[in-house]
Amino acid sequence: MTLTIENAWLPGQGLIRMQVEAGRIVAMGADLLPPPDGERLDAQGMAIVPGFVNGHSHAAMTLFRGFGDDMPLMEWLQTRIWPAEARLSEEDVYWGTRLACLEMIRSGTLYFEDMYWHFHGMARAVEASGIRAGLGAVLIDVAGEEQARQCQYQAEKLCEEAKGYSDRVRFTLTPHAIYTVSGSSLRWVGDFAARHDLVVHIHLSETLHEVEQCVQAHGLRPAFYLDRLGLLHPNILLAHGVHLDAAELDLIARQGATIVTNPVSNMKLAVGGVFPYRQAADRQIPIALGTDGAASNNTLDMFQNMKLFSLLQKHADQDPTVLPAEEAWAIATGCRAPIFGQSGRLAVGEKADFILLRHTLPEVTPTHHLISNTVYAATGHVVDTVVVDGRVLMHNRHVEAEEEICHEVRVRAKRLCAS
Amino acid sequence: MTLTIENAWLPGQGLIRMQVEAGRIVAMGADLLPPPDGERLDAQGMAIVPGFVNGHSHAAMTLFRGFGDDMPLMEWLQTRIWPAEARLSEEDVYWGTRLACLEMIRSGTLYFEDMYWHFHGMARAVEASGIRAGLGAVLIDVAGEEQARQCQYQAEKLCEEAKGYSDRVRFTLTPHAIYTVSGSSLRWVGDFAARHDLVVHIHLSETLHEVEQCVQAHGLRPAFYLDRLGLLHPNILLAHGVHLDAAELDLIARQGATIVTNPVSNMKLAVGGVFPYRQAADRQIPIALGTDGAASNNTLDMFQNMKLFSLLQKHADQDPTVLPAEEAWAIATGCRAPIFGQSGRLAVGEKADFILLRHTLPEVTPTHHLISNTVYAATGHVVDTVVVDGRVLMHNRHVEAEEEICHEVRVRAKRLCAS
Repeated sequence: MTLTIENAWLPGQGLIRMQVEAGRIVAMGADLLPPPDGERLDAQGMAIVPGFVNGHSHAAMTLFRGFGDDMPLMEWLQTRIWPAEARLSEEDVYWGTRLACLEMIRSGTLYFEDMYWHFHGMARAVEASGIRAGLGAVLIDVAGEEQARQCQYQAEKLCEEAKGYSDRVRFTLTPHAIYTVSGSSLRWVGDFAARHDLVVHIHLSETLHEVEQCVQAHGLRPAFYLDRLGLLHPNILLAHGVHLDAAELDLIARQGATIVTNPVSNMKLAVGGVFPYRQAADRQIPIALGTDGAASNNTLDMFQNMKLFSLLQKHADQDPTVLPAEEAWAIATGCRAPIFGQSGRLAVGEKADFILLRHTLPEVTPTHHLISNTVYAATGHVVDTVVVDGRVLMHNRHVEAEEEICHEVRVRAKRLCAS
Repeated sequence: MTLTIENAWLPGQGLIRMQVEAGRIVAMGADLLPPPDGERLDAQGMAIVPGFVNGHSHAAMTLFRGFGDDMPLMEWLQTRIWPAEARLSEEDVYWGTRLACLEMIRSGTLYFEDMYWHFHGMARAVEASGIRAGLGAVLIDVAGEEQARQCQYQAEKLCEEAKGYSDRVRFTLTPHAIYTVSGSSLRWVGDFAARHDLVVHIHLSETLHEVEQCVQAHGLRPAFYLDRLGLLHPNILLAHGVHLDAAELDLIARQGATIVTNPVSNMKLAVGGVFPYRQAADRQIPIALGTDGAASNNTLDMFQNMKLFSLLQKHADQDPTVLPAEEAWAIATGCRAPIFGQSGRLAVGEKADFILLRHTLPEVTPTHHLISNTVYAATGHVVDTVVVDGRVLMHNRHVEAEEEICHEVRVRAKRLCAS
């Protein structure tokens, strides 16, 4: 089946026609002749650009959006989130993830890297939604060896079962953090991931407390500890990295790991620091941007997260020239983190993953600079159309099953959060 | 002419009917009988809440949105903004302000306090748009006494001419700052404002440089200097207040002045500090929230500014409990700054100024907490309907003349910013 996008404005090139087949861009250009048949979509002059990569999320936590803000972290977890999470079924996770996918589609995110429970709930939601995701088997063994064995058994099982999904679902391992997963389990993660060529996705250096605890327990700062366990390599995603010091950044650069910064969540939870972006970028460390879960953000709209990422870095460095719009845009679209497999380029042979922007809305008028407007002035509602894998997931801001998803989440959220 | 709002959800009370006459709420309640005639608007269960007060803006700078980001402040002003501003006509300011009003209506702002050139351009735009604004006569006399006399003459003239506009336009005096207006002109401002009962709106303590310069020139920090000139009183708005110290906050509290914080602009321009919110709030200082101009923000959407205000304070204080959602909402709707004359209350006898929120959109689902969603999850596009002075300015997201305004701004922005 051919999809042809007509009258799309490719920044720097003008109006083009683009032809998509079997999930790939097969032709594009101003002079391209219209194909005789297939689906057609008139972009009406809208800007065609790559979509966002959300590098760190807990998608199903949309169920807990606004359920306890403005609280100290531990009180929030202990009195709100953990009791509610204890009641979660796979079906709850399915619907929570559906809502997250819906929200991400509506704001132009095409790929997200998730960490949450109930893999099949997440995977079915991603399949139904049509976007791409890295979804993992969680590992936590604070309860001891029996829990460790169960998590490992579960991970092995899911690794097999995940093969039943489309290639839009990438199976990963998601050990929660160095303070909730034992050293021996982390070693197991490293071995298993290497054997099966899996991405590993872990929280690292989010709070000072975590750093101090690590130094006390292991005599090493978190990045060095991970490295000793054999886990610092090009196939690992480190979420947060707020409190990494210079030596850790040097090590991470050498080992080729990717850092995912989550500035909105970090500010909202007041983790007491700012990801050292310039120091990481100077070392050529691959960097991505994430939202974290909706419970601590409370939006999955990458526009807002991208802008705040840039503002926070300018503020922290007391320098308005830090992290300019083009750089923030490149990072938010995954161009600085090859681990996600999204090129961020619209070119023949690339995946047919892109969005159309209503770049003439009042909020983004005038267009002195499209990327400036996209980073500093736009929000998700400028996205008109979303195409992933050559399939139109949203057009004219309409996404299938929106009402049903919101209704299901409302009912489930009420039950889960009842006191 | 009567306007009746049907099926509006008043948080805490349920579905109500509200009746509006001559710009005031005249009746409201669940049991209110429908009036026999007049205009009707079905809210279809949407939440009815007060709208935003934007306490500090340079509305017409929408013309320069995205025209030079990520630059050092002085280079940006000297090479981009000032040359472009030198070409501005009253008609340019009219259309730039029209776009700002359009953007504000589309994101639920009902009142803004502006500082810019060409009073009549601004005032005509506000009249045509239907919202409310405080609009001033600018005073700057860096060029010397002749400029001072001209500004004063102009202010006197405009004070008379402003009486020709509706009461949605409030005439103010807007001396730019203590480093661009001489002491004698500031004294004149104080006298003239007192004589005519005018609000004075001035930048204060935005950068450290300003503070140092003031101490050097006058031997006093900015708030004390303003006080010595007789300008610190309940009728003055101090925009920014980033670098106020404890003694200045004590003084401001005693004198009853209002501070307008502009966190997004402050971060984007990297002014090197954070407005000391908690210290100001502890002293019961009236506080409002502003966007600053679109050129340094680059959005007039108060939702985004409100969220970032809360996040920045949590981050700066390293405390997630600071500036909780309800408090941010109260400030953003003008409830903590009586100087704006907006009560922020929906009650019989109050002004018929309110908005309807699409609180069931995916981005704000589920509704564990309406105000949390409004502060942390929503953006301007959740606003469906805007009513000011009993007149419907937007319904179903439609605002009159949108296309024409965007077109005019595009043409003018291109001319103004041509190199």
